[in-house]
Amino acid sequence: MPRVSQDHMDARRREILSGARECFAEFGFEGATVRRLEETTGLSRGAIFHHFDDKDALFLALAHDDAAAMAATVAEQGLVQVMREILADPQEFSWLGTRLEIARRIRTDPSFRERWTDRQAELDAAVLARLREQKDSGRMRTDVPDDVLRVYLDIVLDGLITHLATGRGTAHVSAMLDLVEASLRTGRD
Amino acid sequence: MPRVSQDHMDARRREILSGARECFAEFGFEGATVRRLEETTGLSRGAIFHHFDDKDALFLALAHDDAAAMAATVAEQGLVQVMREILADPQEFSWLGTRLEIARRIRTDPSFRERWTDRQAELDAAVLARLREQKDSGRMRTDVPDDVLRVYLDIVLDGLITHLATGRGTAHVSAMLDLVEASLRTGRD
Repeated sequence: MPRVSQDHMDARRREILSGARECFAEFGFEGATVRRLEETTGLSRGAIFHHFDDKDALFLALAHDDAAAMAATVAEQGLVQVMREILADPQEFSWLGTRLEIARRIRTDPSFRERWTDRQAELDAAVLARLREQKDSGRMRTDVPDDVLRVYLDIVLDGLITHLATGRGTAHVSAMLDLVEASLRTGRD
Repeated sequence: MPRVSQDHMDARRREILSGARECFAEFGFEGATVRRLEETTGLSRGAIFHHFDDKDALFLALAHDDAAAMAATVAEQGLVQVMREILADPQEFSWLGTRLEIARRIRTDPSFRERWTDRQAELDAAVLARLREQKDSGRMRTDVPDDVLRVYLDIVLDGLITHLATGRGTAHVSAMLDLVEASLRTGRD
Protein backbone atom coordinates (compact mmCIF):
# COMPACT_ATOMS: atom_id res chain seq x y z
CA MET A 1 0.00 0.00 0.00
CA PRO A 2 1.45 3.44 -0.91
CA ARG A 3 2.70 5.39 2.10
CA VAL A 4 0.30 8.32 1.69
CA SER A 5 -2.68 6.00 1.72
CA GLN A 6 -1.48 4.24 4.90
CA ASP A 7 -1.00 7.62 6.58
CA HIS A 8 -4.48 8.61 5.55
CA MET A 9 -5.91 5.33 6.90
CA ASP A 10 -4.11 5.79 10.23
CA ALA A 11 -5.31 9.37 10.57
CA ARG A 12 -8.89 8.37 9.82
CA ARG A 13 -8.66 5.55 12.34
CA ARG A 14 -7.44 7.93 15.07
CA GLU A 15 -10.24 10.34 14.17
CA ILE A 16 -12.85 7.58 14.58
CA LEU A 17 -11.38 6.40 17.89
CA SER A 18 -11.30 9.91 19.31
CA GLY A 19 -14.94 10.56 18.43
CA ALA A 20 -15.98 7.12 19.68
CA ARG A 21 -14.23 7.67 23.01
CA GLU A 22 -16.20 10.88 23.46
CA CYS A 23 -19.43 9.14 22.48
CA PHE A 24 -18.96 6.20 24.92
CA ALA A 25 -17.98 8.64 27.70
CA GLU A 26 -21.09 10.76 27.18
CA PHE A 27 -23.73 8.14 26.44
CA GLY A 28 -22.35 4.91 27.88
CA PHE A 29 -21.85 1.63 26.05
CA GLU A 30 -25.54 0.96 25.32
CA GLY A 31 -26.28 4.62 24.64
CA ALA A 32 -23.53 4.94 22.01
CA THR A 33 -25.78 4.21 19.03
CA VAL A 34 -24.56 4.18 15.44
CA ARG A 35 -26.32 7.52 14.87
CA ARG A 36 -24.51 9.08 17.84
CA LEU A 37 -21.20 7.59 16.73
CA GLU A 38 -21.75 9.27 13.36
CA GLU A 39 -22.36 12.58 15.12
CA THR A 40 -19.34 12.51 17.44
CA THR A 41 -16.94 11.23 14.77
CA GLY A 42 -18.39 13.44 12.01
CA LEU A 43 -18.22 10.41 9.70
CA SER A 44 -20.77 8.10 8.09
CA ARG A 45 -21.47 4.63 9.42
CA GLY A 46 -19.95 3.30 6.20
CA ALA A 47 -16.66 5.08 6.93
CA ILE A 48 -16.67 4.01 10.59
CA PHE A 49 -17.37 0.35 9.95
CA HIS A 50 -14.91 0.23 7.08
CA HIS A 51 -12.24 0.56 9.79
CA PHE A 52 -13.89 -1.40 12.62
CA ASP A 53 -16.08 -4.50 12.36
CA ASP A 54 -18.66 -3.35 14.89
CA LYS A 55 -19.22 -1.38 18.10
CA ASP A 56 -17.50 -4.10 20.15
CA ALA A 57 -14.38 -3.76 18.00
CA LEU A 58 -14.40 0.03 18.49
CA PHE A 59 -14.75 -0.32 22.25
CA LEU A 60 -12.03 -2.97 22.48
CA ALA A 61 -9.66 -0.86 20.35
CA LEU A 62 -10.10 2.03 22.81
CA ALA A 63 -9.54 -0.31 25.77
CA HIS A 64 -6.40 -1.56 24.04
CA ASP A 65 -5.11 1.99 23.51
CA ASP A 66 -5.70 2.67 27.23
CA ALA A 67 -3.93 -0.51 28.28
CA ALA A 68 -0.95 0.30 26.03
CA ALA A 69 -0.70 3.87 27.36
CA MET A 70 -0.99 2.62 30.96
CA ALA A 71 1.63 -0.07 30.30
CA ALA A 72 4.06 2.60 29.03
CA THR A 73 3.58 4.67 32.20
CA VAL A 74 3.86 1.55 34.35
CA ALA A 75 7.21 0.65 32.78
CA GLU A 76 8.65 4.06 33.69
CA GLN A 77 6.83 5.01 36.88
CA GLY A 78 4.56 2.21 38.10
CA LEU A 79 0.80 1.69 38.36
CA VAL A 80 0.33 4.13 41.23
CA GLN A 81 1.52 6.88 38.85
CA VAL A 82 -1.19 5.77 36.38
CA MET A 83 -3.70 6.28 39.19
CA ARG A 84 -2.28 9.72 40.00
CA GLU A 85 -2.70 10.70 36.35
CA ILE A 86 -6.32 9.50 36.31
CA LEU A 87 -6.92 11.53 39.47
CA ALA A 88 -5.41 14.62 37.84
CA ASP A 89 -7.72 14.43 34.81
CA PRO A 90 -11.44 14.36 35.74
CA GLN A 91 -12.42 14.12 32.06
CA GLU A 92 -11.11 10.56 32.06
CA PHE A 93 -13.64 9.40 34.68
CA SER A 94 -16.63 9.15 32.42
CA TRP A 95 -14.78 7.21 29.74
CA LEU A 96 -13.18 4.84 32.27
CA GLY A 97 -16.55 4.44 34.00
CA THR A 98 -17.95 3.05 30.75
CA ARG A 99 -15.81 -0.04 31.38
CA LEU A 100 -17.99 -0.85 34.37
CA GLU A 101 -21.06 -1.10 32.16
CA ILE A 102 -19.54 -4.00 30.28
CA ALA A 103 -18.54 -6.01 33.38
CA ARG A 104 -21.50 -8.34 32.92
CA ARG A 105 -20.56 -9.05 29.30
CA ILE A 106 -16.93 -9.65 30.23
CA ARG A 107 -18.10 -12.18 32.81
CA THR A 108 -20.82 -13.92 30.80
CA ASP A 109 -19.85 -13.68 27.10
CA PRO A 110 -16.80 -15.96 26.57
CA SER A 111 -15.80 -14.57 23.17
CA PHE A 112 -16.03 -10.94 24.30
CA ARG A 113 -14.17 -11.86 27.47
CA GLU A 114 -11.34 -13.42 25.52
CA ARG A 115 -10.97 -10.31 23.37
CA TRP A 116 -11.07 -8.10 26.47
CA THR A 117 -8.52 -10.21 28.36
CA ASP A 118 -6.12 -10.20 25.40
CA ARG A 119 -6.13 -6.41 25.56
CA GLN A 120 -5.35 -6.36 29.28
CA ALA A 121 -2.48 -8.87 29.04
CA GLU A 122 0.03 -6.22 28.00
CA LEU A 123 -0.79 -4.15 31.09
CA ASP A 124 -0.58 -7.16 33.43
CA ALA A 125 2.83 -8.02 31.96
CA ALA A 126 4.08 -4.45 32.37
CA VAL A 127 2.93 -4.37 36.01
CA LEU A 128 4.69 -7.65 36.78
CA ALA A 129 7.91 -6.52 35.05
CA ARG A 130 7.90 -3.26 37.02
CA LEU A 131 7.29 -5.09 40.32
CA ARG A 132 10.27 -7.37 39.66
CA GLU A 133 12.50 -4.48 38.71
CA GLN A 134 11.55 -2.57 41.87
CA LYS A 135 12.14 -5.63 44.02
CA ASP A 136 15.54 -6.18 42.41
CA SER A 137 16.54 -2.59 43.03
CA GLY A 138 15.59 -2.89 46.71
CA ARG A 139 12.85 -0.27 46.55
CA MET A 140 9.98 -2.72 46.99
CA ARG A 141 9.22 -5.18 49.78
CA THR A 142 10.14 -8.74 48.85
CA ASP A 143 8.07 -10.57 51.49
CA VAL A 144 4.90 -10.60 49.36
CA PRO A 145 4.70 -12.62 46.09
CA ASP A 146 4.61 -10.69 42.79
CA ASP A 147 1.15 -11.96 41.89
CA VAL A 148 -0.30 -10.79 45.19
CA LEU A 149 1.14 -7.32 44.65
CA ARG A 150 -0.13 -7.30 41.06
CA VAL A 151 -3.68 -8.25 42.18
CA TYR A 152 -3.48 -5.61 44.93
CA LEU A 153 -2.58 -2.85 42.47
CA ASP A 154 -5.14 -4.11 39.95
CA ILE A 155 -7.90 -4.03 42.57
CA VAL A 156 -6.94 -0.56 43.79
CA LEU A 157 -7.03 0.69 40.17
CA ASP A 158 -10.46 -0.88 39.56
CA GLY A 159 -11.67 0.53 42.86
CA LEU A 160 -10.39 4.00 42.01
CA ILE A 161 -12.19 3.94 38.64
CA THR A 162 -15.42 2.81 40.35
CA HIS A 163 -15.04 5.37 43.15
CA LEU A 164 -14.66 8.23 40.69
CA ALA A 165 -17.24 6.92 38.22
CA THR A 166 -19.90 6.79 40.95
CA GLY A 167 -19.18 10.40 41.92
CA ARG A 168 -17.62 9.63 45.32
CA GLY A 169 -15.22 12.51 44.62
CA THR A 170 -11.47 12.99 44.82
CA ALA A 171 -11.21 13.90 48.54
CA HIS A 172 -8.49 11.93 50.38
CA VAL A 173 -7.69 9.90 47.24
CA SER A 174 -4.22 11.35 46.79
CA ALA A 175 -3.34 10.56 50.44
CA MET A 176 -4.85 7.09 49.92
CA LEU A 177 -2.42 6.56 47.00
CA ASP A 178 0.47 7.62 49.28
CA LEU A 179 -0.69 4.92 51.71
CA VAL A 180 -0.79 2.32 48.92
CA GLU A 181 2.70 3.31 47.81
CA ALA A 182 4.05 3.14 51.36
CA SER A 183 2.51 -0.32 51.79
CA LEU A 184 4.61 -1.54 48.85
CA ARG A 185 7.90 -0.07 49.96
CA THR A 186 10.72 -1.76 51.83
CA GLY A 187 10.02 -1.13 55.54
CA ARG A 188 7.28 1.34 56.48
CA ASP A 189 8.05 4.94 55.34
CA MET B 1 -52.67 -2.06 61.66
CA PRO B 2 -53.30 -5.50 63.24
CA ARG B 3 -50.12 -7.48 64.00
CA VAL B 4 -50.87 -10.40 61.68
CA SER B 5 -51.33 -8.06 58.75
CA GLN B 6 -48.01 -6.31 59.43
CA ASP B 7 -46.25 -9.70 59.61
CA HIS B 8 -47.83 -10.66 56.33
CA MET B 9 -46.73 -7.38 54.75
CA ASP B 10 -43.16 -7.87 55.99
CA ALA B 11 -43.02 -11.45 54.72
CA ARG B 12 -44.34 -10.41 51.30
CA ARG B 13 -41.79 -7.60 51.16
CA ARG B 14 -38.93 -10.01 51.91
CA GLU B 15 -40.25 -12.40 49.26
CA ILE B 16 -40.27 -9.64 46.64
CA LEU B 17 -36.76 -8.47 47.58
CA SER B 18 -35.37 -12.00 47.41
CA GLY B 19 -36.84 -12.61 43.95
CA ALA B 20 -35.75 -9.18 42.75
CA ARG B 21 -32.17 -9.76 43.92
CA GLU B 22 -32.06 -12.96 41.90
CA CYS B 23 -33.53 -11.17 38.88
CA PHE B 24 -31.03 -8.28 38.97
CA ALA B 25 -28.15 -10.74 39.48
CA GLU B 26 -29.16 -12.83 36.49
CA PHE B 27 -30.30 -10.20 34.00
CA GLY B 28 -28.64 -6.97 35.17
CA PHE B 29 -30.34 -3.70 35.96
CA GLU B 30 -31.62 -2.99 32.44
CA GLY B 31 -32.46 -6.64 31.80
CA ALA B 32 -34.62 -6.95 34.93
CA THR B 33 -37.91 -6.19 33.17
CA VAL B 34 -41.26 -6.15 34.95
CA ARG B 35 -42.12 -9.46 33.29
CA ARG B 36 -38.90 -11.05 34.59
CA LEU B 37 -39.46 -9.57 38.05
CA GLU B 38 -42.90 -11.24 38.03
CA GLU B 39 -41.27 -14.57 37.11
CA THR B 40 -38.51 -14.52 39.73
CA THR B 41 -40.75 -13.24 42.54
CA GLY B 42 -43.73 -15.42 41.54
CA LEU B 43 -45.95 -12.37 42.08
CA SER B 44 -47.94 -10.05 39.84
CA ARG B 45 -46.70 -6.57 38.95
CA GLY B 46 -49.64 -5.24 40.97
CA ALA B 47 -48.41 -7.03 44.10
CA ILE B 48 -44.77 -6.00 43.53
CA PHE B 49 -45.50 -2.33 42.93
CA HIS B 50 -47.94 -2.20 45.82
CA HIS B 51 -44.84 -2.58 48.03
CA PHE B 52 -42.29 -0.64 45.96
CA ASP B 53 -42.88 2.48 43.87
CA ASP B 54 -40.81 1.33 40.90
CA LYS B 55 -37.73 -0.65 39.82
CA ASP B 56 -35.42 2.04 41.22
CA ALA B 57 -37.05 1.69 44.64
CA LEU B 58 -36.59 -2.09 44.54
CA PHE B 59 -32.94 -1.77 43.58
CA LEU B 60 -32.25 0.86 46.25
CA ALA B 61 -34.01 -1.26 48.91
CA LEU B 62 -31.66 -4.16 48.07
CA ALA B 63 -28.65 -1.83 48.17
CA HIS B 64 -29.84 -0.59 51.55
CA ASP B 65 -30.18 -4.15 52.89
CA ASP B 66 -26.62 -4.85 51.71
CA ALA B 67 -25.28 -1.69 53.31
CA ALA B 68 -27.03 -2.52 56.61
CA ALA B 69 -25.72 -6.10 56.62
CA MET B 70 -22.20 -4.89 55.78
CA ALA B 71 -22.42 -2.20 58.48
CA ALA B 72 -23.32 -4.88 61.07
CA THR B 73 -20.28 -6.99 60.08
CA VAL B 74 -18.08 -3.88 60.03
CA ALA B 75 -19.09 -3.00 63.59
CA GLU B 76 -17.99 -6.42 64.86
CA GLN B 77 -15.15 -7.38 62.55
CA GLY B 78 -14.28 -4.55 60.13
CA LEU B 79 -14.61 -4.02 56.39
CA VAL B 80 -11.86 -6.47 55.45
CA GLN B 81 -14.05 -9.20 56.98
CA VAL B 82 -16.92 -8.07 54.70
CA MET B 83 -14.54 -8.57 51.77
CA ARG B 84 -13.54 -12.03 53.04
CA GLU B 85 -17.22 -12.99 53.17
CA ILE B 86 -17.81 -11.75 49.62
CA LEU B 87 -14.80 -13.78 48.51
CA ALA B 88 -16.20 -16.90 50.23
CA ASP B 89 -19.56 -16.67 48.42
CA PRO B 90 -19.21 -16.53 44.63
CA GLN B 91 -23.01 -16.27 44.24
CA GLU B 92 -22.78 -12.74 45.56
CA PHE B 93 -20.58 -11.58 42.68
CA SER B 94 -23.26 -11.27 40.05
CA TRP B 95 -25.60 -9.33 42.32
CA LEU B 96 -22.84 -7.00 43.51
CA GLY B 97 -21.66 -6.58 39.93
CA THR B 98 -25.07 -5.15 39.06
CA ARG B 99 -24.09 -2.09 41.09
CA LEU B 100 -21.46 -1.29 38.47
CA GLU B 101 -24.14 -1.01 35.78
CA ILE B 102 -25.75 1.90 37.59
CA ALA B 103 -22.50 3.87 38.09
CA ARG B 104 -23.41 6.23 35.27
CA ARG B 105 -26.83 6.97 36.78
CA ILE B 106 -25.34 7.53 40.22
CA ARG B 107 -22.96 10.05 38.67
CA THR B 108 -25.36 11.81 36.32
CA ASP B 109 -28.87 11.60 37.86
CA PRO B 110 -28.88 13.87 40.95
CA SER B 111 -32.09 12.49 42.49
CA PHE B 112 -31.04 8.84 42.06
CA ARG B 113 -27.61 9.74 43.38
CA GLU B 114 -29.07 11.29 46.51
CA ARG B 115 -31.15 8.20 47.21
CA TRP B 116 -28.13 5.95 46.60
CA THR B 117 -25.85 8.04 48.82
CA ASP B 118 -28.39 8.03 51.66
CA ARG B 119 -28.27 4.26 51.64
CA GLN B 120 -24.47 4.17 51.79
CA ALA B 121 -24.23 6.66 54.68
CA GLU B 122 -24.89 3.97 57.30
CA LEU B 123 -21.99 1.89 55.99
CA ASP B 124 -19.61 4.88 55.85
CA ALA B 125 -20.52 5.72 59.44
CA ALA B 126 -19.95 2.13 60.60
CA VAL B 127 -16.54 2.03 58.89
CA LEU B 128 -15.48 5.31 60.53
CA ALA B 129 -16.69 4.17 63.97
CA ARG B 130 -14.79 0.90 63.64
CA LEU B 131 -11.61 2.70 62.53
CA ARG B 132 -11.77 4.97 65.59
CA GLU B 133 -12.38 2.07 67.93
CA GLN B 134 -9.43 0.14 66.47
CA LYS B 135 -7.20 3.19 66.74
CA ASP B 136 -8.23 3.74 70.36
CA SER B 137 -7.50 0.12 71.24
CA GLY B 138 -4.01 0.40 69.72
CA ARG B 139 -4.64 -2.19 67.01
CA MET B 140 -4.61 0.27 64.11
CA ARG B 141 -1.98 2.72 62.94
CA THR B 142 -2.72 6.29 64.02
CA ASP B 143 -0.42 8.11 61.58
CA VAL B 144 -3.02 8.16 58.79
CA PRO B 145 -6.26 10.22 59.11
CA ASP B 146 -9.55 8.31 59.52
CA ASP B 147 -10.97 9.60 56.24
CA VAL B 148 -7.95 8.43 54.28
CA LEU B 149 -8.28 4.94 55.79
CA ARG B 150 -12.03 4.95 55.08
CA VAL B 151 -11.47 5.93 51.41
CA TYR B 152 -8.73 3.27 51.16
CA LEU B 153 -11.05 0.51 52.42
CA ASP B 154 -13.93 1.79 50.29
CA ILE B 155 -11.77 1.74 47.16
CA VAL B 156 -10.44 -1.75 47.89
CA LEU B 157 -14.05 -2.99 48.37
CA ASP B 158 -15.18 -1.37 45.09
CA GLY B 159 -12.12 -2.79 43.37
CA LEU B 160 -12.79 -6.27 44.73
CA ILE B 161 -16.39 -6.17 43.48
CA THR B 162 -15.19 -5.01 40.03
CA HIS B 163 -12.40 -7.60 39.95
CA LEU B 164 -14.80 -10.45 40.70
CA ALA B 165 -17.63 -9.09 38.54
CA THR B 166 -15.33 -8.96 35.49
CA GLY B 167 -14.30 -12.57 36.01
CA ARG B 168 -10.69 -11.85 37.04
CA GLY B 169 -11.03 -14.72 39.49
CA THR B 170 -10.24 -15.25 43.16
CA ALA B 171 -6.54 -16.20 42.82
CA HIS B 172 -4.28 -14.26 45.25
CA VAL B 173 -7.23 -12.22 46.54
CA SER B 174 -7.14 -13.70 50.04
CA ALA B 175 -3.41 -12.93 50.33
CA MET B 176 -4.14 -9.45 48.95
CA LEU B 177 -6.62 -8.92 51.81
CA ASP B 178 -3.93 -10.00 54.30
CA LEU B 179 -1.69 -7.32 52.79
CA VAL B 180 -4.44 -4.70 53.15
CA GLU B 181 -5.00 -5.71 56.76
CA ALA B 182 -1.28 -5.57 57.54
CA SER B 183 -1.06 -2.10 55.98
CA LEU B 184 -3.65 -0.88 58.52
CA ARG B 185 -2.05 -2.37 61.60
CA THR B 186 0.26 -0.71 64.09
CA GLY B 187 3.81 -1.40 62.83
CA ARG B 188 4.24 -3.85 59.96
CA ASP B 189 3.20 -7.47 60.72
